[in-house]
Amino acid sequence: MRILLINPNISQSVSDLIGAEARRAASAATRIEVVTAPLGVAYIETRFEALIGAYAAANLAAEHEANFDALVIAAFGDPGIAGIREAVDVPVVGLTEAALMSACLLGGRFSIIAISRRITAWYRECVQVNGLIDRLASIRCLDQPLRDIGAIQGDHETRLRELCLRAVEEDGADVIVLAGAPLAGLARSIRKDIPVPLVDGVSSAVRHAETLIALAPGRASRGSYAPPPTKPNQGLSPAVQALLERRRP
Amino acid sequence: MRILLINPNISQSVSDLIGAEARRAASAATRIEVVTAPLGVAYIETRFEALIGAYAAANLAAEHEANFDALVIAAFGDPGIAGIREAVDVPVVGLTEAALMSACLLGGRFSIIAISRRITAWYRECVQVNGLIDRLASIRCLDQPLRDIGAIQGDHETRLRELCLRAVEEDGADVIVLAGAPLAGLARSIRKDIPVPLVDGVSSAVRHAETLIALAPGRASRGSYAPPPTKPNQGLSPAVQALLERRRP
Amino acid sequence: MRILLINPNISQSVSDLIGAEARRAASAATRIEVVTAPLGVAYIETRFEALIGAYAAANLAAEHEANFDALVIAAFGDPGIAGIREAVDVPVVGLTEAALMSACLLGGRFSIIAISRRITAWYRECVQVNGLIDRLASIRCLDQPLRDIGAIQGDHETRLRELCLRAVEEDGADVIVLAGAPLAGLARSIRKDIPVPLVDGVSSAVRHAETLIALAPGRASRGSYAPPPTKPNQGLSPAVQALLERRRP
Amino acid sequence: MRILLINPNISQSVSDLIGAEARRAASAATRIEVVTAPLGVAYIETRFEALIGAYAAANLAAEHEANFDALVIAAFGDPGIAGIREAVDVPVVGLTEAALMSACLLGGRFSIIAISRRITAWYRECVQVNGLIDRLASIRCLDQPLRDIGAIQGDHETRLRELCLRAVEEDGADVIVLAGAPLAGLARSIRKDIPVPLVDGVSSAVRHAETLIALAPGRASRGSYAPPPTKPNQGLSPAVQALLERRRP
Amino acid sequence: MRILLINPNISQSVSDLIGAEARRAASAATRIEVVTAPLGVAYIETRFEALIGAYAAANLAAEHEANFDALVIAAFGDPGIAGIREAVDVPVVGLTEAALMSACLLGGRFSIIAISRRITAWYRECVQVNGLIDRLASIRCLDQPLRDIGAIQGDHETRLRELCLRAVEEDGADVIVLAGAPLAGLARSIRKDIPVPLVDGVSSAVRHAETLIALAPGRASRGSYAPPPTKPNQGLSPAVQALLERRRP
Amino acid sequence: MRILLINPNISQSVSDLIGAEARRAASAATRIEVVTAPLGVAYIETRFEALIGAYAAANLAAEHEANFDALVIAAFGDPGIAGIREAVDVPVVGLTEAALMSACLLGGRFSIIAISRRITAWYRECVQVNGLIDRLASIRCLDQPLRDIGAIQGDHETRLRELCLRAVEEDGADVIVLAGAPLAGLARSIRKDIPVPLVDGVSSAVRHAETLIALAPGRASRGSYAPPPTKPNQGLSPAVQALLERRRP
Repeated sequence: MRILLINPNISQSVSDLIGAEARRAASAATRIEVVTAPLGVAYIETRFEALIGAYAAANLAAEHEANFDALVIAAFGDPGIAGIREAVDVPVVGLTEAALMSACLLGGRFSIIAISRRITAWYRECVQVNGLIDRLASIRCLDQPLRDIGAIQGDHETRLRELCLRAVEEDGADVIVLAGAPLAGLARSIRKDIPVPLVDGVSSAVRHAETLIALAPGRASRGSYAPPPTKPNQGLSPAVQALLERRRP
Repeated sequence: MRILLINPNISQSVSDLIGAEARRAASAATRIEVVTAPLGVAYIETRFEALIGAYAAANLAAEHEANFDALVIAAFGDPGIAGIREAVDVPVVGLTEAALMSACLLGGRFSIIAISRRITAWYRECVQVNGLIDRLASIRCLDQPLRDIGAIQGDHETRLRELCLRAVEEDGADVIVLAGAPLAGLARSIRKDIPVPLVDGVSSAVRHAETLIALAPGRASRGSYAPPPTKPNQGLSPAVQALLERRRP
Repeated sequence: MRILLINPNISQSVSDLIGAEARRAASAATRIEVVTAPLGVAYIETRFEALIGAYAAANLAAEHEANFDALVIAAFGDPGIAGIREAVDVPVVGLTEAALMSACLLGGRFSIIAISRRITAWYRECVQVNGLIDRLASIRCLDQPLRDIGAIQGDHETRLRELCLRAVEEDGADVIVLAGAPLAGLARSIRKDIPVPLVDGVSSAVRHAETLIALAPGRASRGSYAPPPTKPNQGLSPAVQALLERRRP
Repeated sequence: MRILLINPNISQSVSDLIGAEARRAASAATRIEVVTAPLGVAYIETRFEALIGAYAAANLAAEHEANFDALVIAAFGDPGIAGIREAVDVPVVGLTEAALMSACLLGGRFSIIAISRRITAWYRECVQVNGLIDRLASIRCLDQPLRDIGAIQGDHETRLRELCLRAVEEDGADVIVLAGAPLAGLARSIRKDIPVPLVDGVSSAVRHAETLIALAPGRASRGSYAPPPTKPNQGLSPAVQALLERRRP
Repeated sequence: MRILLINPNISQSVSDLIGAEARRAASAATRIEVVTAPLGVAYIETRFEALIGAYAAANLAAEHEANFDALVIAAFGDPGIAGIREAVDVPVVGLTEAALMSACLLGGRFSIIAISRRITAWYRECVQVNGLIDRLASIRCLDQPLRDIGAIQGDHETRLRELCLRAVEEDGADVIVLAGAPLAGLARSIRKDIPVPLVDGVSSAVRHAETLIALAPGRASRGSYAPPPTKPNQGLSPAVQALLERRRP
Repeated sequence: MRILLINPNISQSVSDLIGAEARRAASAATRIEVVTAPLGVAYIETRFEALIGAYAAANLAAEHEANFDALVIAAFGDPGIAGIREAVDVPVVGLTEAALMSACLLGGRFSIIAISRRITAWYRECVQVNGLIDRLASIRCLDQPLRDIGAIQGDHETRLRELCLRAVEEDGADVIVLAGAPLAGLARSIRKDIPVPLVDGVSSAVRHAETLIALAPGRASRGSYAPPPTKPNQGLSPAVQALLERRRP
């Protein structure tokens, strides 16, 4: 199996974290690759940045899908996921939805630990879009400036553990989701100290992508996830244009 | 007042419909302009096309906001609305949210009349994102190929009237929303034959934009609609880059 | 345009606040009038008082509607709004629904600032009836005896500002609604100190009423907002009786 | 126990139906009385009529509560129930809420059978206000002119049975609620022909009122169902005025 | 009337509390009996224990239903209620649903007071299953080890009163539900000190059971509460087997 | 990896279907075993049967968990899942929740195809308990007597295909879930004829179980999924007793 993780942001250091955790999580036979967005911002914490990340991810998905068995949108919030799922021919999994599905198989209500206060409103909306707001116990967040997006785990580990514990004690979380690609892999190191299951988006997404490849459930040719109907377009990248104009059986 | 309507699609014929209805609806002192997206598709009916439209709209918003008192995202589904609202300094109104708010002031439950079956799933999600799904009586749609996106009103008027009547009789609609920029202005001509209030997105959006300008409620400098925090970026249009790097008081 | 604001309470001092803010908010060509309920209480903070206010408002609406292009029910909680909307021939707007619709066009989640603790349960129910409970961040309230209903703004301004700030900081409000006719106009004076958009019910209602007049969406003759079917009645005021027995085309 | 049923409408024939069913349902030791509203309409099927009925019911409640151990608001839709519950010192039960509570103890989802199409929108809102919309399977209704409000049971029995059966077969109803005071007692005669439990509002309300008297759960002196705080009032009936100005321990 | 209360737990001391409160609450003519589960745990506070309690209750219901006019599942959380309701021929009432229905007739939102922290997650799920989560103000709980399940009322009365008061003051509860069979009867002794109505599950269930017997709404022979269709089975108790194989008219 | 599938019913023929599909779906290195309940019914379609199945599954889980890395509750509706998840030390996955999670990764809204009308009410409740009711497009079902529970796929294939197509065309399903262990494996044979992704519970559950084993998210020692606190018990199977009395670190 070949899985491409698309970092919709421009941070190579975060792509490295993503790739490392993805490889740790993948089955032996799976080949993992990561691409980094050529346009966008360092990391997404607003709806505007997510909108840009969605466009960047869509372009990368169009460019690369032919060479992979599944795609992972490798930013929490899953920018562009629903649209990209419509357009490409392989399964697409997002970090948020993957983490939420794992969490739902492990307990009743989950809390999300986020890397900034600003990002929490958008995360809440993502949970709502996934239809799971009734299972959200809380979103807790770091509330300090982030010196280096690739070094959050080291810089803030104590505070992150503490947020997990408070979510369990005060908010009734049965499961904790560590949110955001910059936290990829953290679950492995702090898991033994947290008294409930700990879910990581990258490893969940890679495993769920493998599952969708294996289950081979089929591609929508009808309904709202069928490929977009062909119609006039202009000004798009060659890859997106090709995707929209592809003739399907 | 100067209001810019942003057509996130490439269809000049639809921009013309939008502009005409906007001018009919605006107060005498309001100056209306319309811009058409230089990139994208003819009209949006899928999540993927909405994602592209959002990016196109964001770029146009960044480029033009300094010259206007309010912006209108002039496609049903409001592609990019929440992100653009964060980023620019003037009020931003979308066709869907404007129509829904008008509908809510006119009755209890509303139905939406759409121009294609494919588009209905996305419209339903838009109503849900606006938090108003409990007031949605139904979405009914044309189910024929669209010969010419600028000529739907003429080509399908009989069927559109019929959909309105069935929404009232069978679905319990108290109000009807005619959805989609290609239907801009239709409400004026069929209103007298429909036994419940009929809402048009363009005229609602223009009027609500005027209201927000007049009320001058202030710009968010805190919370999740404050401008995105400054951080490294690359590959963006000069206007978007300037928006993200603007120094705010 | 002629708009009548109906104060469903007996407080002339509150009617004066309402009228002053309504005139500040209205377009130049709009004529504003205010009537005060001849029966009822000083201000509504319970469901029982709202029930009385609804009856008072219905009688005033029946009496005056023929002379106006739109009516505003000028108490937060919109006593009687849905019933009055069914019965009269012109648009009817309530302070709460108007404020909520404005808030929804300005951000994701809103908080409401109320003038007493007792009133908050009823406000919460009003948000729920409007179908917008998922967008309610919090309701915060004054918790002191009210010396003079017409002088709350002066007596409690510091505390009211503080409640706004806490709603933003602690509850995640993107927008603040100042609730209750006794706070009419306060937004203008404190707006610059509050870091999110501030919405006032009276000015929102006046502007939305103007919009509904301008859009002229039509009157329901079918569905659940059509005029009540004629049937035997007794003991009603002449105006209400006339309304119920009016022959419609 | 003394229970007063308040008919918020002016129809003596409906009061007679209510009284007869109430006496059949009550325990031997319970004394039943019925009062008919001196003002209002023949029967409520709109929000406007409910608003008037609420006011009429409130006045009757204020006038009579001192002589009874519990009150029943004897119209479906429970006009004024929440407000009256705040104001008087004895338990108050509405036909709708009583029927819904009985239905919830008998199965998962219920359907409501109503006497006119117009009334269904308001019933749906009542279910929503009771927080039970997720358990509503459907509302089905008569769709014929009503010759005589006191004779619906005889005039339409065949059709009413048919609506019950269709709710079970097509809508998945586990329980049927026969809605509206004019149907009081019908359940007794058709019960054996309907394949799911059949709930009548009047008998449910009388029994639940007896239960609340027996349980003696106490009267709210705090929270949102405490009596309204005393404040200036004018123009009210002597009974309502006395209620609002009563000194409580 | 003969009502059987089924304690799905093995604690005789709790059965004694249940029986005493049931007899205090029942009408004079009602005969109350209590059975204690022969298998299970001392008291239920987890989903696993509830699963066992449901099985124990089902067996007892099958064994005894022929001799009673109604059954009460006498543990909070109502283990097995929906399944048992399908299978037996008499009305079945659970402590939780009975308490919630009483609470809904007394005010808008209720709080639940529970005997351990662990139990609260399951109680929350029970409220959700009953479709009433929007009316839940809060769940508050004892947070101390329980020395003796039959003596909680005496051991923790001060703290229980305090939890009630905080639910009113801080959570906006209009009504308090004292949850759990071990608290049966407590409401009678502390009622006068709590400023909102106080609901007890056992007395509510007994009274509602009497009401269902009196209303005689009929037994489902269609729909999802009809008796389970006959099919092969094995390994069940003779009583359950007989229930499943009974021939119905 | 060793995964045990627990058939909570007594049908060996269904266990065979389950085992066959599980082995087709599992990774090469995974060892699959299936156990059949020694007590219960042929297949579950009511809440009462689910209650019995839950007890049977709990006993089998207690007996076997020590020898496996994960358990699958192999009946749609997941009888006992939440309780068993609390009690055992390995991950537990149910057919319904596994299928729903797969479906959520493949599209927006899903329909469920069920084997009998009676079963649909319970399935709907299962979707609700999983918090995903807003993503349920419809439940469609066979409506014929089932000759042989192990032969439904052959007997009813044409009708099952037809139900899938109608869910897509009429209900707006983006994904179809084939529900019930008796349909295990059907997706493989009809997939190519259905125009949207088709999800099978058994293969989804096996794959998700493998994922949870691989992710090793940790076991809850706090919160509502920690093992039940130790307390007196009696009458339980030795395995369940041992589980409840196990000393944990």
